[in-house]
Amino acid sequence: MIIDDKKGIELALEEAKKGYAEGGVPIGALLVSGDGQILGRGHNMRFQKNSAILHAEMSALENAGRMKGNVYKDCTMYTSLSPCDMCTGACIMYGIKRVVLGENTTLVGGEGYLKSRGVEVVNMDNQDCKDIMAKFIKERPDDWYEDIGQEK
Amino acid sequence: MIIDDKKGIELALEEAKKGYAEGGVPIGALLVSGDGQILGRGHNMRFQKNSAILHAEMSALENAGRMKGNVYKDCTMYTSLSPCDMCTGACIMYGIKRVVLGENTTLVGGEGYLKSRGVEVVNMDNQDCKDIMAKFIKERPDDWYEDIGQEK
Repeated sequence: MIIDDKKGIELALEEAKKGYAEGGVPIGALLVSGDGQILGRGHNMRFQKNSAILHAEMSALENAGRMKGNVYKDCTMYTSLSPCDMCTGACIMYGIKRVVLGENTTLVGGEGYLKSRGVEVVNMDNQDCKDIMAKFIKERPDDWYEDIGQEK
Repeated sequence: MIIDDKKGIELALEEAKKGYAEGGVPIGALLVSGDGQILGRGHNMRFQKNSAILHAEMSALENAGRMKGNVYKDCTMYTSLSPCDMCTGACIMYGIKRVVLGENTTLVGGEGYLKSRGVEVVNMDNQDCKDIMAKFIKERPDDWYEDIGQEK
């Protein structure tokens, strides 16, 4: 299966839905190679694994496993939500080429910094990605703010 | 035990040495609260856990566990080496107040970006931190470049 941007966000949303069903923060991500193959996929695992670092993009990177640095340079990170500063930094450190996000209505993450560091950023403005986060935040606002390190 | 900057880097170096003894990348870190208590400590676990994300600072955050966002706002992250872009982003996302590093001769990470985002950065310029990294990179250059996502 070759992953294009539309399919990439569909699968990121599928991961987000898995996370929601598990009682987690519904954000999903996948790391896709330059030739459209899935290298790793995952979703936010804060509540499932009591993790302070397993945001969706971090899970996708972790599930892809250890790879040589050159592998990342043609990759696209698909994520159902604009990446936070941590996930932004992870994409920059590995030299990921493109970040395609489902939406940035819920949160505007490090998009500007990604661009300033030469990363292509595409916002697919997907309504389903917005809806699942709106539902989660309405149900569990404190858990959402904890996930992004905010005081509320 | 109250951790000051000198002690903080001593303990980060101690973590780095543990990592080296385990066959890992010798970088250590600890997260310390505003009143000088250790909340989490750890070291780079790339080789020990086949992890693409467990740099030292990430390990310290993970080992500190899930905490409310306001806890981080007075914290200091001690790290034996200047933080890479990923670890920089993690510190920014959580709103960590200060980053104290052992050295930046081996690598200059996200110090400038940290400062631009309001984080205090202190370089302790510790010779032992430099020496352990120089020894590791001489012994295992490919593993070092893999750890920071570089192509070499």
